[in-house]
Amino acid sequence: MEKLTSLIREIPDFPRPGILFKDITPLLEDADAFHFAVTEMATRAKGLRPTKIVSIESRGFIFGAPLAYELHCGLVIVRKPNKLPHKTTKIEYALEYGVDRLEMHVNSLQKGDRVIIVDDLLATGGTAAATAELVSRTGASVEALLFLCELPALHGRQKLKDYDVVSLVSF
Amino acid sequence: MEKLTSLIREIPDFPRPGILFKDITPLLEDADAFHFAVTEMATRAKGLRPTKIVSIESRGFIFGAPLAYELHCGLVIVRKPNKLPHKTTKIEYALEYGVDRLEMHVNSLQKGDRVIIVDDLLATGGTAAATAELVSRTGASVEALLFLCELPALHGRQKLKDYDVVSLVSF
Repeated sequence: MEKLTSLIREIPDFPRPGILFKDITPLLEDADAFHFAVTEMATRAKGLRPTKIVSIESRGFIFGAPLAYELHCGLVIVRKPNKLPHKTTKIEYALEYGVDRLEMHVNSLQKGDRVIIVDDLLATGGTAAATAELVSRTGASVEALLFLCELPALHGRQKLKDYDVVSLVSF
Repeated sequence: MEKLTSLIREIPDFPRPGILFKDITPLLEDADAFHFAVTEMATRAKGLRPTKIVSIESRGFIFGAPLAYELHCGLVIVRKPNKLPHKTTKIEYALEYGVDRLEMHVNSLQKGDRVIIVDDLLATGGTAAATAELVSRTGASVEALLFLCELPALHGRQKLKDYDVVSLVSF
């Protein structure tokens, strides 16, 4: 895991002053590190016997898609407003200032689906909690939320108390 | 390939009136179809001995990431403006009305890298041609552009004459 940590670059004041952004692109560009990260996620996810991977736009796709491929699951994508073309179920959630919205196609999940939600980063947990709520509404079960990277200082797990949360590296 | 085609849903008038949108989400949600699509892409890409997969935001990530994983390549992401946090190289390209811009981190590719560019859909080819130009500027070689799906009526290949273009299905 030390190698993964060393390949996540910190960029000060992005996207806004005062934010120390975790840039995962050096990790993605390193073939061994990217392969190891996906393999590790798959190892942790496998025992949960997921039927669907739900991944969150857009960096979540980068880990959700290979995980769905490796575990031979369907991939469901959760997107920002007005990106999905068919009938969607929507959720609003609070940001530091204002609200944001996520959408998922209705009928993407069925009762009985066992879901792992995948994103690159667990920060405040708002996006992840909203996604878990979207998934739960369908009658599918959230078996775990799986992240490449976690910022424990932002207490994201407090918003995800009802769920199992796994991250490969912490800062 | 017939199964892939049957799982791409047509949505009229999305995102604008007059556009017949190809919705790939039913294909993604079908574990067998998604696995088959990635495996087929990998089969076609393997002989080109790529060192890097370049994928285009954001649906391109859905195929580029598992392909990089399967072929054990680094993954480079090309994004819309102001999404990449480090120093970028930029390109503008013409749309039907106005211009759009793409960015890639400088130093993501080196001279000698063998690149396959991956996206979900080849339509007019503007985005793909701009990405190929971004890649070529670095001194890396574009070995091929690889798409899940192609709309030949929009003549995207005309903008990509200098390159090998592969798509799994055509409409």
